[in-house]
Amino acid sequence: MGLARASGRNLVAKLDMLVEGTDVPGGMGYRNAARKAVAMCVSDFAAKGVRPGSFMISLGLRRGTSMRQVRELGMGLRDAEREWGVALIGGDTNEAKELVIDCAMLGFADGIVPRSGAKPGDAIVVTGPFGFEPAGLRILEKRAKAEKRFASEAVRRVFRPTPNLEAGVALAPFLSASMDSSDGLSRSLHTIARASGVGLEVESLPAGEGVREFAKQNSLPLRELVLEGGEEYAIVATLARSKLPHARRALSRAGATLKLIGRVAGVPGSVVMVSGEERQEIRDAGWTHLG
Amino acid sequence: MGLARASGRNLVAKLDMLVEGTDVPGGMGYRNAARKAVAMCVSDFAAKGVRPGSFMISLGLRRGTSMRQVRELGMGLRDAEREWGVALIGGDTNEAKELVIDCAMLGFADGIVPRSGAKPGDAIVVTGPFGFEPAGLRILEKRAKAEKRFASEAVRRVFRPTPNLEAGVALAPFLSASMDSSDGLSRSLHTIARASGVGLEVESLPAGEGVREFAKQNSLPLRELVLEGGEEYAIVATLARSKLPHARRALSRAGATLKLIGRVAGVPGSVVMVSGEERQEIRDAGWTHLG
Repeated sequence: MGLARASGRNLVAKLDMLVEGTDVPGGMGYRNAARKAVAMCVSDFAAKGVRPGSFMISLGLRRGTSMRQVRELGMGLRDAEREWGVALIGGDTNEAKELVIDCAMLGFADGIVPRSGAKPGDAIVVTGPFGFEPAGLRILEKRAKAEKRFASEAVRRVFRPTPNLEAGVALAPFLSASMDSSDGLSRSLHTIARASGVGLEVESLPAGEGVREFAKQNSLPLRELVLEGGEEYAIVATLARSKLPHARRALSRAGATLKLIGRVAGVPGSVVMVSGEERQEIRDAGWTHLG
Repeated sequence: MGLARASGRNLVAKLDMLVEGTDVPGGMGYRNAARKAVAMCVSDFAAKGVRPGSFMISLGLRRGTSMRQVRELGMGLRDAEREWGVALIGGDTNEAKELVIDCAMLGFADGIVPRSGAKPGDAIVVTGPFGFEPAGLRILEKRAKAEKRFASEAVRRVFRPTPNLEAGVALAPFLSASMDSSDGLSRSLHTIARASGVGLEVESLPAGEGVREFAKQNSLPLRELVLEGGEEYAIVATLARSKLPHARRALSRAGATLKLIGRVAGVPGSVVMVSGEERQEIRDAGWTHLG
């Protein structure tokens, strides 16, 4: 049982389960798996602008799990504690048919950035590049080839997802709506559009450096890589255009940059790619478990 | 992401994972499995004297899980909400190789009853009968036979564990140490003895009605059934003898009874069964995952 000092008017809590079969790509060790389970929760807190204080971990361990693997899990949790300034306050260990790491993260705040606050005329922004992670997964599964430096960056991002908590906390006061992008950019855009009852027009794809070349080299549609991959752990948000310069300044102090990718406009609930005169629907094609 | 109003000086949080392979006996449906996952957390809150406010659920569902099963899980969570007055505030759904239900339960309190406060001379008490659940498991696995009425009660207790939250809250102000008994009475006694640095002398076994006969009928050692079974979800506690009458009164108002089973005495860390002149060590033999 965990205890944490209450501070702030509301408890903010998030539960996210990492399951070996779907969330742990081949080659990812137990240390990075444990760190990733915590990162998945931190990512949500970052998008909501809340600094988490503590977390708990439920482990499902396969029969035959070695002491070395248990130690690696411990190191991954320790990595997370240091990296994001959170404290592990409790947990539970069980036997299971595959590795399961469930993370419950807790924080206090007076309020959080909703998904439902986007307003017509707002800018759409993201805090990170997209496409590296889906490229990295394809490289790991040997379904794609890539230039060595790009491959190493893409795979590193898959193994060590790094939500930027400081950026999220710095950005939050300026945002009208936001969510993280762990299920893919298109899923985040559609969720915000639906929750806010607005249309979203995307004018530029926030492709990471080298993602365009990777797509070409492997005959993959760039748009799918950038919009439909998932695992990116960046923040997708909307804010009043007047607040854009302030948000940029706050974010640069947190060591991050804001990329403007479009604006809130169009038919409520719609998400479209606009380039010149051309308008093309962006489908809601993020990662769906059991879909 | 869940939000709950903060109240009380400390956040109390508990994470407990139910895994199909070890925690869901054959014949237990999805509705009872979901309810049990919440009961496991409620049991801890009851032992600590804290009324929980909310909970989150992470689900790992097997590929091929039917809509009927998903609805049953929902009904079990609804049962738990009603039964213990807690609100489901969030969760996560995943694909897994077996059913996994992880429950994170949250509450606020100024303090909790520790495991470490037992003092020499204190009385040792329990809030429920022991032995029904291990008997029920044996009956379900067709490893034991039983009189029909006993069997039905024992199996019902396995399928619908019912921690008494009201009893726990009523009792807490009088206790020096306590914990729940879901891993077995001997495990709880040893944990309290170690944490408090005291010895425990058990003078009477809190066997449920009919457990003695069941043991005899199946040639099972009564002591093992009562001490080493687990899954009982009662409270094992110590308190000053002078507080016993007050604790009994408070508990009877909550519709429960207190059974005195022994006293805090003897070599620190030891747990012994005392009957007349005879003293026999009680081994620490509760349920251990991966043990």
